[in-house]
Amino acid sequence: MAAWSEQLRRERVTIGFVPTMGALHDGHRSLIRAARLRCDALVVSIFVNPTQFGPAEDLAKYPRPITQDRALCREEGVDVCFEPTPASMYPEGFQTIVTVPEIAQRWEGEARPHHFAGVATVVTKLFGIVQPQLALFGQKDYQQAALVKRLVADLNFGVTIDVRPTIREQDGLAMSSRNRYLSPENRQAATILYRALLAGRLAIRKGARKVPAVERIMQQTVGQEPAARIEYLTLCDPASLKPLANVAGRTLLLGAIRIGTVRLIDNMLVKR
Amino acid sequence: MAAWSEQLRRERVTIGFVPTMGALHDGHRSLIRAARLRCDALVVSIFVNPTQFGPAEDLAKYPRPITQDRALCREEGVDVCFEPTPASMYPEGFQTIVTVPEIAQRWEGEARPHHFAGVATVVTKLFGIVQPQLALFGQKDYQQAALVKRLVADLNFGVTIDVRPTIREQDGLAMSSRNRYLSPENRQAATILYRALLAGRLAIRKGARKVPAVERIMQQTVGQEPAARIEYLTLCDPASLKPLANVAGRTLLLGAIRIGTVRLIDNMLVKR
Repeated sequence: MAAWSEQLRRERVTIGFVPTMGALHDGHRSLIRAARLRCDALVVSIFVNPTQFGPAEDLAKYPRPITQDRALCREEGVDVCFEPTPASMYPEGFQTIVTVPEIAQRWEGEARPHHFAGVATVVTKLFGIVQPQLALFGQKDYQQAALVKRLVADLNFGVTIDVRPTIREQDGLAMSSRNRYLSPENRQAATILYRALLAGRLAIRKGARKVPAVERIMQQTVGQEPAARIEYLTLCDPASLKPLANVAGRTLLLGAIRIGTVRLIDNMLVKR
Repeated sequence: MAAWSEQLRRERVTIGFVPTMGALHDGHRSLIRAARLRCDALVVSIFVNPTQFGPAEDLAKYPRPITQDRALCREEGVDVCFEPTPASMYPEGFQTIVTVPEIAQRWEGEARPHHFAGVATVVTKLFGIVQPQLALFGQKDYQQAALVKRLVADLNFGVTIDVRPTIREQDGLAMSSRNRYLSPENRQAATILYRALLAGRLAIRKGARKVPAVERIMQQTVGQEPAARIEYLTLCDPASLKPLANVAGRTLLLGAIRIGTVRLIDNMLVKR
């Protein structure tokens, strides 16, 4: 893979890269299409990275529909489906860790303590192997995308990071490989997170400027759905992810809820 | 700098890189000459990296003879002297940290708790900027070189790491930018570290196989010099830097002493 990339770069071929954990859906498809339009060569990695899962998380049962994933990549004109194995990524003696501590400490990082070190390290490795000029990430994993942007700036990787809008189901549920864990009733209940974000945005558009007031509106919305439990539902700075004292020019509404055992995240950027 | 490197790589020019903190001596010169012979383009960085110094260490007084350093680079045919500033390397908001925890935990890492995270992070940044195919490090900083090798393998950087033999003064003292801190009497006393390593090597060559016995011989040698205080003086595995139970096929003798306020390190690889 690295030799292929090195050769292409010599030939001035631009390499676009979409790192994924497979179980590809229309959110991934939108990243792949955006990359396809902007690059000569397009690499999609499919790697369920064990180091970003906690011990009680869903690593073993994470969906791995590799045949469908390869078919989607073929359909979308992907040049290389890069499918490394855990043993090739983390051989005996592997130990290096990349962390982005300030961005990683909050929200998803609080709920999933080693998650973002796993993400930062695997993204660094994948960038080293694929050597892309451009890498695309979905806004649904907003904190992850913010972390990758910071990482790339801090470590002087010559990779442009493009964050693409969240792709949603008809009823607003953000597409996620984990949505397939939802029972039919819970699948219906899951839209409550999106509706809470909409309620928060509406409140801001109507003039709300106090963070607790907007948070309360979002929490009350989720409270209407008995199957849902809030993990966090907050307003923060879109770059640093720090909590805000007041609604700012650009505000990020960010949330995680549980529906039964399934954990869902979503977010919305709001301009005042 | 990064754009220059990118252009050269497209033209299939091989880039060699010698990262330094300046105050260049014949040890650096030997790295530069070795690189000069093996690469088309040669970059030397001169950057006294603040993040690898502890709060009680010699960051402020670290020698910065930039005019002489540039002259040496010119003499040796260096193409680019890369001299970033701390503000350009660590702008507002910088936070990413690279660690190599197992190699970093012992020896120098124990004496200098954040030193190796500073080294690993700045080396990652410099590799990102300079994009070398080959980087050269001196064996005098053995643990640093082992850490960089591990880092490059773990993070899939396509950089070959070449570790070159320690260059010594006539009397055996390993060349170091910090040797200039030594008073004339202490300069004489400083050779005791090299003599201790020689005594350890001799003991192994004569058949010693017990680690404590060899360590005792080295310690007794340093004990003959009243100005010297041992920080550590040990036998370890040359790849993992872990302490050895018995003298192995390849053994690393590794030590740090203080002479007055000056801290000196040295090492020797011994084949049984």
